[in-house]
Amino acid sequence: MFKKILIANRGEIAMRVIRACRILGIRSVAIHSEADAGALHVRFADEAVCIGPAEAAKSYLNVPQIIAAAEVTGADAIHPGYGFLSENAHFADVCRKCRLTFIGPTPEAMRTWGDKVAAREAAVRFGLPLLPGTGVLKDAVEAVREADKIGYPVILKAAGGGGGRGMRVVRNADELGRAFDSATREASSAFKNPNIYLERYIEEPRHIEFQVLADQHGQVWTLGERECSLQRRHQKVVEEAPSPSMTNDRRIRMSDIVRHAMRETAYTTLGTLEFLMDEGGELYFMEMNTRLQVEHPVTEMVTGVDVVEQQIRAAAGERLRLPDTRPWSFRGHAIECRINAEDPRTFTPWPGLITEYHAPGGGGVRVDSGVYGGWRVPSAYDALLAKVITHGATRAEAIARMRCALDEFVIGGIRTNIPLHQALLREPEVIEGRMSTRTIERVIARGF
Amino acid sequence: MFKKILIANRGEIAMRVIRACRILGIRSVAIHSEADAGALHVRFADEAVCIGPAEAAKSYLNVPQIIAAAEVTGADAIHPGYGFLSENAHFADVCRKCRLTFIGPTPEAMRTWGDKVAAREAAVRFGLPLLPGTGVLKDAVEAVREADKIGYPVILKAAGGGGGRGMRVVRNADELGRAFDSATREASSAFKNPNIYLERYIEEPRHIEFQVLADQHGQVWTLGERECSLQRRHQKVVEEAPSPSMTNDRRIRMSDIVRHAMRETAYTTLGTLEFLMDEGGELYFMEMNTRLQVEHPVTEMVTGVDVVEQQIRAAAGERLRLPDTRPWSFRGHAIECRINAEDPRTFTPWPGLITEYHAPGGGGVRVDSGVYGGWRVPSAYDALLAKVITHGATRAEAIARMRCALDEFVIGGIRTNIPLHQALLREPEVIEGRMSTRTIERVIARGF
Repeated sequence: MFKKILIANRGEIAMRVIRACRILGIRSVAIHSEADAGALHVRFADEAVCIGPAEAAKSYLNVPQIIAAAEVTGADAIHPGYGFLSENAHFADVCRKCRLTFIGPTPEAMRTWGDKVAAREAAVRFGLPLLPGTGVLKDAVEAVREADKIGYPVILKAAGGGGGRGMRVVRNADELGRAFDSATREASSAFKNPNIYLERYIEEPRHIEFQVLADQHGQVWTLGERECSLQRRHQKVVEEAPSPSMTNDRRIRMSDIVRHAMRETAYTTLGTLEFLMDEGGELYFMEMNTRLQVEHPVTEMVTGVDVVEQQIRAAAGERLRLPDTRPWSFRGHAIECRINAEDPRTFTPWPGLITEYHAPGGGGVRVDSGVYGGWRVPSAYDALLAKVITHGATRAEAIARMRCALDEFVIGGIRTNIPLHQALLREPEVIEGRMSTRTIERVIARGF
Repeated sequence: MFKKILIANRGEIAMRVIRACRILGIRSVAIHSEADAGALHVRFADEAVCIGPAEAAKSYLNVPQIIAAAEVTGADAIHPGYGFLSENAHFADVCRKCRLTFIGPTPEAMRTWGDKVAAREAAVRFGLPLLPGTGVLKDAVEAVREADKIGYPVILKAAGGGGGRGMRVVRNADELGRAFDSATREASSAFKNPNIYLERYIEEPRHIEFQVLADQHGQVWTLGERECSLQRRHQKVVEEAPSPSMTNDRRIRMSDIVRHAMRETAYTTLGTLEFLMDEGGELYFMEMNTRLQVEHPVTEMVTGVDVVEQQIRAAAGERLRLPDTRPWSFRGHAIECRINAEDPRTFTPWPGLITEYHAPGGGGVRVDSGVYGGWRVPSAYDALLAKVITHGATRAEAIARMRCALDEFVIGGIRTNIPLHQALLREPEVIEGRMSTRTIERVIARGF
């Protein structure tokens, strides 16, 4: 097992990894920017090294400085957390060259799953279901023929880019010709590439993801799924496990497919396969994240598995021994709210001094916080302050506990998105488990 | 179900009951003394009523004022918490007369189990094992004869009083004659009653208690045992579930006896039967507490039962539906540390302004707090600030989590007993589960 782990991250996830280190009896090294000198993770790690100015490119993304910090402190492994360098295969390469264990999969696995085309090829090869779609379309006539096969609605997408440009949702053949032309023009001017392809369009998609854990001895587990449909602009806001829209049959079938794909690619440590779910409950593979995720605690609460501890053990080459992780051994329901420093309606980031801070407590309530009262939230990083996770025997109980916990959470001096969470937990779509990735935009449009 | 519950208590336990009310959709009324106007429970209850000055006799023990507060706010039930009026049968009588449901057993049950003689008689009648002992002894000759039957060591006790006076531990027959005379003289002068009796003496007793839950429909559950051997002057400091000294056979046998006794006495709601355990693992009934206990969260964490929610449901006359509560369905291990405002070595209470407050977080960590940063802890009440409870798959994991949680807990401006807890969790007797009620005095004598 490792003697000392450097945590190449900040905030709540650095705290999370420090805790796992303590449980395992491993010393922890925090790195921090000048802006984070007084941050919570710096106060609680066994050692701390300042690696540069506030700007992430010069600190938390500064590979040579991070490697130097690991060498100076005698760390034998680096945990990248999420974000920053966590999916950077080059960083994993450098770690390997410097004889530091990167706590994550191999750089090769990161490259495969991090590349859209390679990931799609792997998905096809290993039987992960993909959204019906086409290659580049010659013209509007071919588009109509393909759309007829796929079934309406469809979405036209630019092959050369993303971000919504060149995209058109089309609901029937009459609309398709004009949409094809305008999408082609837009793609051409935005990406210097007029190529357009088609995909089935899901009006109310849900976001479902499967947690994978694998050791270096060929053992692979899926720890069930999470539902993360409550998103705003592809940023997850609320996550839960299990998904209220998942049947046990589909869960078992999909777990088998996922485990097979991971075993075939000799994947190791933690990973998450993200899927879209259509209105009929069918799942379509989107992408794989080759790292720990923000929302891992909901999985921990229903499976009883300490995901970060197991990730570290797997990276150290241990043969993992897990409790029964078949779906019928999962216990109850867990839900997570991400508490951000931002205006709850406009989403404007709201850094500043936290004048008062009191986290909720009591049974079935977990708080993973990266801040404290008296701490000035810097403007240089993301807005995540803390995560509140609640557990209950049923989904209704987990929601009731979350309502209670949000009411108790006092964060003074800055704005937070707690009022948005409170509105979401009053929303019938959410209470009844009928939400989609569009729920939040409706709640915001309606006002709360 | 009740519409509104008045909570006749303060601090962390008032917060605990408020949370249970929220989960059940019941409105909560806090009462408070003038000293507690800014207390946490006052901030979080739906309503709050000031009932008198700081002195407990004039506020939290002031029956007419509490009843008036319930009537003014339209509460239909009163939760007494622990301490204060929670075991006061007269208060339960008054509630009944005023058509307020007292959330606890009947006044009759409180009287039976609250009276030493009546409780002992009930214990004999229902087969609860008692420590071998005698009635009042005629003379030293009879004392020697009885001690031979019981087996040494024995303890002489004054029939007329307690508090250590008139008590003598005797390890052989030679010592007994002189000890009998001096104990008689001391009892006579201290209590005006020279009567003396004998009991078996346990050198290293352990404190074991069984949690009982019963509804008004004849259903009785035992939710396993807790071990509370880490005490100082009969004040519990650390509690855990299950007990590391309990075999499953004995757990099941004792649960059966306890359930039988509760069923025979038609006991309802919550109760705890406290036992001494001798070095051979035998249990001897000490007393029953007819109320919620401080240490109930360790039971909640291993059984998955929300004890306060069930207590309220039982008091409302519901037929309880519990999950499987047989010992083999318990999950993992839980441990609780009581965080007190006191000097960790001298135990001098240390009220005052909390200048900084940051509770620990992360997986498997529960915090039940009654305070916050900026709150001035009043001197009028007990020293309990908060409870930290950790859960793990094994006892070692629960202890590792607790060590981590204690290291994270920041309480500035006052002294707390956190350093004592940290010392206890380094103590081999504790780590190996060999502690007794004398462990703490040894740790303190040795220094930390």
